[in-house]
Amino acid sequence: MAQLIQILAVVFFYAASSWAASDPSNHFAKCTEVISFYQQDLFFPTPGLNATTAIALPGTNNATMFAQVAILDDKLTQAPSMDSKLVGRAKGMLVFDSLSNISLLTSLTVELEGRDGNINLLGQSRALEPQRELSIVGGSGEFRFVQGFATLRTYSLEPYGSKIFFQLYVIKLWECLIKSQV
Amino acid sequence: MAQLIQILAVVFFYAASSWAASDPSNHFAKCTEVISFYQQDLFFPTPGLNATTAIALPGTNNATMFAQVAILDDKLTQAPSMDSKLVGRAKGMLVFDSLSNISLLTSLTVELEGRDGNINLLGQSRALEPQRELSIVGGSGEFRFVQGFATLRTYSLEPYGSKIFFQLYVIKLWECLIKSQV
Amino acid sequence: MAQLIQILAVVFFYAASSWAASDPSNHFAKCTEVISFYQQDLFFPTPGLNATTAIALPGTNNATMFAQVAILDDKLTQAPSMDSKLVGRAKGMLVFDSLSNISLLTSLTVELEGRDGNINLLGQSRALEPQRELSIVGGSGEFRFVQGFATLRTYSLEPYGSKIFFQLYVIKLWECLIKSQV
Repeated sequence: MAQLIQILAVVFFYAASSWAASDPSNHFAKCTEVISFYQQDLFFPTPGLNATTAIALPGTNNATMFAQVAILDDKLTQAPSMDSKLVGRAKGMLVFDSLSNISLLTSLTVELEGRDGNINLLGQSRALEPQRELSIVGGSGEFRFVQGFATLRTYSLEPYGSKIFFQLYVIKLWECLIKSQV
Repeated sequence: MAQLIQILAVVFFYAASSWAASDPSNHFAKCTEVISFYQQDLFFPTPGLNATTAIALPGTNNATMFAQVAILDDKLTQAPSMDSKLVGRAKGMLVFDSLSNISLLTSLTVELEGRDGNINLLGQSRALEPQRELSIVGGSGEFRFVQGFATLRTYSLEPYGSKIFFQLYVIKLWECLIKSQV
Repeated sequence: MAQLIQILAVVFFYAASSWAASDPSNHFAKCTEVISFYQQDLFFPTPGLNATTAIALPGTNNATMFAQVAILDDKLTQAPSMDSKLVGRAKGMLVFDSLSNISLLTSLTVELEGRDGNINLLGQSRALEPQRELSIVGGSGEFRFVQGFATLRTYSLEPYGSKIFFQLYVIKLWECLIKSQV
């Protein structure tokens, strides 16, 4: 019992100072994980490329595209190049909900090659800021009971859309508190 | 104080091995709960039945209905039959967001007869898989601070839609950590 | 280590009995916070006022506006008057998803003047009830890892929309468990 409690405390402590995943010899490496990838956002129809985003509803103005709704099923790759190793897909919805800048209510689920289940993200992303942040609100499969956050940085703007670098900081409460005991 | 800590640990332990709710004599039965019901998804307009789902936006293709948006207010029943006891409603939105299969970004709130508040679900549901899983990301009323997951299984496909068997595995942190102490 | 555990327990205990924020001398005041504001919901187009809500999709009936979708970027003020101090914005989406009353699947992010990041809310809001409740499912910036709930009360109905009084009950796990230790 006391061991369980210690694990909970250590999980949070490690999450703060340095993510344990970077040190695989650490007993708590399995409790936290940093997952990185590039989202290949094929937003605009472009000859020779199939867009992976559909504009489901148009915006009410051209400046901030307020009320535009986009639905996406984007490739996730290991490196910036679109031809680099496919590591997963990000599916979900973007709602342009700002009257003053380009900002997206973002509801995304991330699936990763070779892993079971999804990581579910929710938050507000001001697309033109160098870094923005979404909440990890839960997951499924091996990602049950996860919490955390994701940072998003625009790696490059392209004629067809953009490449966005994601880093997910995941705390796997299930793995730490449960599986380690049974 | 130490008691509070022990409860937290035991909650998570019970969640793993066997859900405490199945053993009402257990002190921690109130911390976890398994809630089961059948969702009567009246998706397609059918003579003699009022659809409880509205297709708010059409999809961009017929194969996966990518970018289709549906809004629903479905009956939840105790047994598979549509005439069995009504136990609640599931309200929310489905966004078809896959280019390769039938998969739904699912944002649902569940209300249950005789109980105060909602349970809020979010996740990705590949409709054709035998079992899929949503996250329980929170709740209201007596379901404040809940976490957990829900499994969904298609019980039957019908001309008007489908019957889906839900099992919600709920951890009620509020009940366990707070109410038991005051 | 034991100190960390004690903090976790005390956070939850304070959250229950009285929110510690009301007593700034308390060591745990930084773990919980109550944030209050008025949402100025400019829903209907009105001469001399710019609506801050766009009806993105119409409803399928007039009684409950089932399947209506609205996207908003509303002012948050300190007092009921629209001219009182601006304290932030609420952005997001409302989905009318009830066949029997006016009820909104609500996905909102709250940003506050002078503070870094967002608080992310999700839930079902029966607009005509005197009080309803959303879940706080996470946040970003200084609101990483927050959990909690928000109560919403209609302060007044206006020709252009409504004024809604929000109270957010925030548990800042990050602040309590991590920052207090490093």
